[in-house]
Amino acid sequence: MEKILGAIETGGTKIICAVGDITGRISDRMQFPTERPERSVPKMIEFFEDKGVDAIGIGAFGPIDVIKGSEGYGSIRKCERDGWSFYPLLSTVCDALGVPGDMDTDVNTACLAEYTYGAGKGAEILLYVTVGTGIGIGITIDGKPVHGMMHPEGGHVGAIRHPDDRFKGTCPFHGDCIEGLACGPAIKERWGMPGAELADREEVWDMEAHYLAQLVRNCMMTIAPNRIVMGGGVMQQACLFPKIRRSVAEQVNGYMDCPETMDMDSYIVPSVLEGNQGVLGGFVLADNALKGGRR
Amino acid sequence: MEKILGAIETGGTKIICAVGDITGRISDRMQFPTERPERSVPKMIEFFEDKGVDAIGIGAFGPIDVIKGSEGYGSIRKCERDGWSFYPLLSTVCDALGVPGDMDTDVNTACLAEYTYGAGKGAEILLYVTVGTGIGIGITIDGKPVHGMMHPEGGHVGAIRHPDDRFKGTCPFHGDCIEGLACGPAIKERWGMPGAELADREEVWDMEAHYLAQLVRNCMMTIAPNRIVMGGGVMQQACLFPKIRRSVAEQVNGYMDCPETMDMDSYIVPSVLEGNQGVLGGFVLADNALKGGRR
Repeated sequence: MEKILGAIETGGTKIICAVGDITGRISDRMQFPTERPERSVPKMIEFFEDKGVDAIGIGAFGPIDVIKGSEGYGSIRKCERDGWSFYPLLSTVCDALGVPGDMDTDVNTACLAEYTYGAGKGAEILLYVTVGTGIGIGITIDGKPVHGMMHPEGGHVGAIRHPDDRFKGTCPFHGDCIEGLACGPAIKERWGMPGAELADREEVWDMEAHYLAQLVRNCMMTIAPNRIVMGGGVMQQACLFPKIRRSVAEQVNGYMDCPETMDMDSYIVPSVLEGNQGVLGGFVLADNALKGGRR
Repeated sequence: MEKILGAIETGGTKIICAVGDITGRISDRMQFPTERPERSVPKMIEFFEDKGVDAIGIGAFGPIDVIKGSEGYGSIRKCERDGWSFYPLLSTVCDALGVPGDMDTDVNTACLAEYTYGAGKGAEILLYVTVGTGIGIGITIDGKPVHGMMHPEGGHVGAIRHPDDRFKGTCPFHGDCIEGLACGPAIKERWGMPGAELADREEVWDMEAHYLAQLVRNCMMTIAPNRIVMGGGVMQQACLFPKIRRSVAEQVNGYMDCPETMDMDSYIVPSVLEGNQGVLGGFVLADNALKGGRR
């Protein structure tokens, strides 16, 4: 019989809790607004209390501590979200429910979901890029999320300016890094209205693709991913995909001619699990925890 | 009894062959100029013929095919070196000697050497950066080299120009990528003399550090390495290390405060195996081949 798995996705505005199994079936699901942990975490625990889950997987907003064996493993790192700095999310939930669990960044969790169920199924090195309120990347190698000393933060690489762009950038740390120039709020601030209302303005998406293609090139040259899945609110502008593919091909200029890059339409692809990535990736994390992979 | 291991390092100007064991002891060593494979490869085979090696490890100039199971596995890819395009180096040597073997890029091999014997011992994710005739990166995760669809080529990311730099760059593919602006030949062409003769020109190394720090930041944001080892001819200018550390810290601006980055002097460090990396990494590749890891 399949194990019953619990998944939690914590986002900037809402938290999703779900129950299901490793086949990807979702049997129950609830969401509520993100508040301080003293209010939000008891709601998570209450939701799972009578569901009989065997393990929990959490995909959380970063920065978080995912370094196994570190003192703060499973905690939120210092952040600007009210009350969440240093909050020990994983242990609080797992201890209350008496089950094992694992936690990763929201983007690594999404990457794991796309690797297991979605558009990146089986890719040896899979890169997932989300472009929304922020710009984040997740990486799995043979289905294992990459952490290193922290976790990937590929939206914060430097950017070569588009010649027509005078916008100063929104990133509080780096100003005009890729995230600072190309995330949803940057589009809104530069052009005076949200991306959704700029759909027919070609110059908006040419500039956006200029920046996102740089991020993709950086990742290609660094880890040579076998496939790249892109998702998030901004990527719902479908015109971005052909523009990004064209710009990446121009920038790389034949330097990485591999079977994978011969067909850019199947190399850089849209997420197919949009909206369910956190839950499905959470099931995989929970399943890993049962197999003794973490905590 | 320790297995007898053979290592081959093919470089642009010379080839080194050596015999030793997994403790890192080198018992025999020979080098000769790089010529066409019909001349160079028989010399390799002849050197090893009476040495009784149990396996061979090759660190080769790129681009090469390191994708296990691919038709060209162990071959040089299309390149500009006379006669080497598509040459099946690994199988030619291993078949002649009747032993197993493994092959990787020169930089991944150097990274493996630093992980096993050198300045990156035990780092979960280790990044090795070489700055010389070209700029290359190698990555190991838990001691396993990263390949993806090809292999890391991190010198070819885009560069944000230094405000005083008008040099067009030397890269035949990308012009002013990091390699095109900061490799040894770029320094020579921009300033009119080789780096070794520019040791006391502060502006040369400030500009060089500006570019190399961008490469380091890119890699940090992408894979969060636990340590970064830098080597190669250009890095012999010891003044580069403090300049790079300072520029990286400024660029990252507190975004990756980890135990590792608290002390930049131990986070970004010089290679300690300079000159022996190819041979020592070759022994590790040979040892892996004996354990059935490859080929």
